[in-house]
Amino acid sequence: MNYEAYFKRQIEGLHREGRYRVFADLERQAGAFPRATHHRPDGTSDVTVWCSNDYLGMGQHPAVLSAMHEAIDSCGAGAGGTRNIAGTNHYHVLLEQELAALHGKEAGLLFASGYVSNWATLSTLASRMPGCVILSDELNHASMIEGIRHSRSETRIFAHNDPRDLERKLADLDPHAPKLVAFESVYSMDGDIAPIAEICDVADAHNAMTYLDEVHGVGLYGPNGGGVADREGLSHRLTVIEGTLAKAFGIVGGYITGSAALCDFVRSFASGFIFSTALPPAVAAGALASVRHLRSSSAERERHQDRVARLRMRLDQVGVAHMANPSHIVPVMVGDAALCKQISDELINRYGIYVQPINYPTVPRGTERLRITPSPQHSDADIEHLVQALSEIWSRVGLAKAA
Amino acid sequence: MNYEAYFKRQIEGLHREGRYRVFADLERQAGAFPRATHHRPDGTSDVTVWCSNDYLGMGQHPAVLSAMHEAIDSCGAGAGGTRNIAGTNHYHVLLEQELAALHGKEAGLLFASGYVSNWATLSTLASRMPGCVILSDELNHASMIEGIRHSRSETRIFAHNDPRDLERKLADLDPHAPKLVAFESVYSMDGDIAPIAEICDVADAHNAMTYLDEVHGVGLYGPNGGGVADREGLSHRLTVIEGTLAKAFGIVGGYITGSAALCDFVRSFASGFIFSTALPPAVAAGALASVRHLRSSSAERERHQDRVARLRMRLDQVGVAHMANPSHIVPVMVGDAALCKQISDELINRYGIYVQPINYPTVPRGTERLRITPSPQHSDADIEHLVQALSEIWSRVGLAKAA
Ligand SMILES: Cc1ncc(COP(=O)(O)O)c(C=O)c1O
Ligand SMILES: Cc1ncc(COP(=O)(O)O)c(C=O)c1O
Repeated sequence: MNYEAYFKRQIEGLHREGRYRVFADLERQAGAFPRATHHRPDGTSDVTVWCSNDYLGMGQHPAVLSAMHEAIDSCGAGAGGTRNIAGTNHYHVLLEQELAALHGKEAGLLFASGYVSNWATLSTLASRMPGCVILSDELNHASMIEGIRHSRSETRIFAHNDPRDLERKLADLDPHAPKLVAFESVYSMDGDIAPIAEICDVADAHNAMTYLDEVHGVGLYGPNGGGVADREGLSHRLTVIEGTLAKAFGIVGGYITGSAALCDFVRSFASGFIFSTALPPAVAAGALASVRHLRSSSAERERHQDRVARLRMRLDQVGVAHMANPSHIVPVMVGDAALCKQISDELINRYGIYVQPINYPTVPRGTERLRITPSPQHSDADIEHLVQALSEIWSRVGLAKAA
Repeated sequence: MNYEAYFKRQIEGLHREGRYRVFADLERQAGAFPRATHHRPDGTSDVTVWCSNDYLGMGQHPAVLSAMHEAIDSCGAGAGGTRNIAGTNHYHVLLEQELAALHGKEAGLLFASGYVSNWATLSTLASRMPGCVILSDELNHASMIEGIRHSRSETRIFAHNDPRDLERKLADLDPHAPKLVAFESVYSMDGDIAPIAEICDVADAHNAMTYLDEVHGVGLYGPNGGGVADREGLSHRLTVIEGTLAKAFGIVGGYITGSAALCDFVRSFASGFIFSTALPPAVAAGALASVRHLRSSSAERERHQDRVARLRMRLDQVGVAHMANPSHIVPVMVGDAALCKQISDELINRYGIYVQPINYPTVPRGTERLRITPSPQHSDADIEHLVQALSEIWSRVGLAKAA
């Protein structure tokens, strides 16, 4: 076996399909979001970023940056160990308490990322409870799917956002078996939102635990930024609420919140938690400042929704179709990997607008899209520039426009 | 099923076995390592940390801290997206190049942590090469084991650090099947070092790829801090060298280095890489400064080895037995979970010395230990204080002393 040749052939396959990924090399400009410097082989240029998941621009918020600076000065760069071996810093303790309070839970537990929090928690819960059956929404994120897969426990996939299908799947199971229903609040690629109350009703009727990924909801919804469940007054109904510190909170890291016993169980048994260095004190300190700010301030959330509504309205006016949904994510469908990449290239090269093409396997083939994420920092002029650019490109490449 | 009661019973089991983990809530003091503030319910006290994996104290190095400050000021808090979607920052690109150069490889690839780099790379390589067989050292780290397990590919465990057993296992296999030998340079709990050249010889003879975890070697060994393989002039013989930015480099994050095609393959197919937010610019900038510093300065490595030798000598003189090994890790064996915890409690409460007890599952039952990690910042007086404390406790609890 020639390994190098094998790797190269696989990469060539991606090129042929038009879905080889080229990462845009950016330098974000703190204080000037959504502006960034784009590094390319032939030099640099300024771009406006329209696809970041730093949804509220908290990544440049002065309170966050100064908390990080302070923690670096007082505690240094890294945590210095796993949580158990010299790596627990006082900021971790405070942040876990803050996150528990955000979701109205007894306890919180931090992980290296949202990916790791999903993977480690789901694989630990499912594998450590003998006979546990997982009920998983068919569109769940890769990190949940891999965690469930890793547990090797029995799994039933239910139809996307469909409590009735979940009900049927649950009714088929041994009433005494432990069960866990895993789903998301806001689905990241289509921007649709789960019927959380109905799913909890069905789960309760069958004594199943509920696990909600609020990665695209925390900070953004609810009077205190506790997510969609918070907005709907449902936080207490979820067994576990999982979130990230890397999107609306603007930094990096993931977490779960739940009962003290559940968090202690995961803390004590999850390999992905135990055997990995803790987050740097400065990351925890910055996240703490970000969560605290968004618990008390709704200005960012209001401006965010305003920008989303304005972009949608202007896209409608010029006839560039986008997928309707009740969230802050604006998917503009293209439906072809190569064309999607071509449009993205034109946007950045001719208009200084950066929107990454979203291709398989992130979305199903045939649903390739531009996933546009307005932030409070996008001005009316930014929106006009984007809408005009899309309108011109749509005409040029012959994509259908709405009436 | 009563889930809460189940979680509580499991936790009670850990209490009964004396291996329930209590995290020491610390506040590291930048500029004063290895000193930290210990937060407890009844107040705070100063402790000397003797079990950190910030092996060289790079977590307080001025070059690292100022690189982090600068990146926060220029780029903000977080990366703002996955590497593919708005999350690649120029610091990531530079750091990947630097790490490739450190190990003499064509390319490097960053992950959220060393745990994720092992898990994601091994599971991707093994599952994406049809028929791939993994040969895994029996003492490999949890992150490698879980990655291999996740791939569901055929696996053979070879006896620890035993090229002859590896040879036997390889000889049994289909000569045409793809194969990967996974092992570590420095084993973290016993501090022993793999016979890298012999393992590569055997692997080469059977056309197997080699995957070396240098998590406890990078920064610490080799003329440029490239690890044990670097010291022994063997870097070019490994297919993949994996490392962490969280131990000797003092921050957080993980990486692999290898051929351009291999790194591109993992970049393109690894779920744990693709679907997770990139490391913050400040983390990448700090790591870049740390790697650069340790590539050109050997002072930290020399002082580190000097401190290790001195501690060993003094322990020998007072008769506190420690496990002999050729690395920087000083395991002082206790052999009982409850006693290990008791000694650790006495050390922190009576002497202001923090050494976490290491119990099952991190080490096998019956080999519970104090894992002591001297750093360049531990003074002669620190060493004396530790040695006296251990000597007194050993007498008090009746642990055997060497002649
Ligand atoms: C639904 C969902 N869950 C989890 C994650 C992972 O979170 P993180 O980026 O913090 O690893 C993501 C995306 O990154 C996501 O979209
Ligand atoms: C051998 C080994 N590999 C990998 C890891 C994981 O690295 P990280 O702490 O960066 O997740 C560790 C410890 O944490 C380790 O000891």
